Amino acid sequence: MQLAFSETSPYVRKVRICAIERGLADNIELVPTTVLPTEKNPEYTRDGNPLGKIPALRLDCGQVIYNSGVICEYLDSLPGGDQLIPADASRWAVLTQHHLASGILDALVALRYETWLRPENLRWSDWAEGQQRKAFQAMDWFEAHPEMRHGPLNLAQISLGCALGYWNFRFADLDWRQYSGLKAWYAEFSQRPSMQATQPPA
Amino acid sequence: MQLAFSETSPYVRKVRICAIERGLADNIELVPTTVLPTEKNPEYTRDGNPLGKIPALRLDCGQVIYNSGVICEYLDSLPGGDQLIPADASRWAVLTQHHLASGILDALVALRYETWLRPENLRWSDWAEGQQRKAFQAMDWFEAHPEMRHGPLNLAQISLGCALGYWNFRFADLDWRQYSGLKAWYAEFSQRPSMQATQPPA
Repeated sequence: MQLAFSETSPYVRKVRICAIERGLADNIELVPTTVLPTEKNPEYTRDGNPLGKIPALRLDCGQVIYNSGVICEYLDSLPGGDQLIPADASRWAVLTQHHLASGILDALVALRYETWLRPENLRWSDWAEGQQRKAFQAMDWFEAHPEMRHGPLNLAQISLGCALGYWNFRFADLDWRQYSGLKAWYAEFSQRPSMQATQPPA
Repeated sequence: MQLAFSETSPYVRKVRICAIERGLADNIELVPTTVLPTEKNPEYTRDGNPLGKIPALRLDCGQVIYNSGVICEYLDSLPGGDQLIPADASRWAVLTQHHLASGILDALVALRYETWLRPENLRWSDWAEGQQRKAFQAMDWFEAHPEMRHGPLNLAQISLGCALGYWNFRFADLDWRQYSGLKAWYAEFSQRPSMQATQPPA
């Protein structure tokens, strides 16, 4: 399998962690791929994801699978270690929390586009504040629900780990350390070999 | 069950269509909910989705499920009509195409925020063009893959119908009628009772 890949994409990181945790990483070739919402990438949007987003997973038969959530579920369906997405009634909580953590990423990525990619004279503080608010509201929820951070490893925990890792990577000045429960959990979770092996560049 | 609802949200529409097609609509109470990325909605972000996005589905036990894709999968797991998300090997194609059609929506919603919500003097043409490009690239893919539009009803077709409906609703001037295969399919698909019952306001 081939994974459209960038070292800095937190969505790619989530997929890589799932692959490592399920013992599938050796089956996946990482294909460096650069995408940006304001730039064309005709080769990738033709052969990979027409939306110009990464990751996308190309199977050996040629079929292409995305987005990151679908890829994680696909990897979870292959023979491997313990399931990351439960099939029982807890499935809906895990998938909802996965989307909540992905929503932190979406908000932070939108914030980065607003404060880094967009020309300075076209930035809108209401938009940046709105995206920060979404991220912090999601953090409030996670801080108030410690039960999701315990128990067997699942996709929601991996997604939360990637969100906090991306936050530290891109927004070190935007302090979230007031969330003492999340802070303690992340200090431990980020030591997992799968997290260590997928750290964004320094 | 209670669904955080707006008549104009294409993501809510997708959930409602799934509920109608599976015979579950009578079990769902629609709760009018207004969200906007630049405005606070403390009640909804506390009790519904902390990201301030709709839809969210509150089960009778109090558990809240989102995003629209997770809600559709949850509804598909309840006793009802034919499955909208196959469990066999075609699952990954359907889920990928669902995300591709949702990506058209994401791009069009981003385009709307850029060209309607954002103050005029802060708009960035590169961003608007980039989002349009994503939408058209996805349309290119769907036009070139007629097989996905045939066969039993599934979540990908519903998502595509909602994307084209939203395109007509918000961007009537942005012509997509050059896609003759999609045009013919949508003319027929939009006549389904579930599509008719969920049309955005005139």
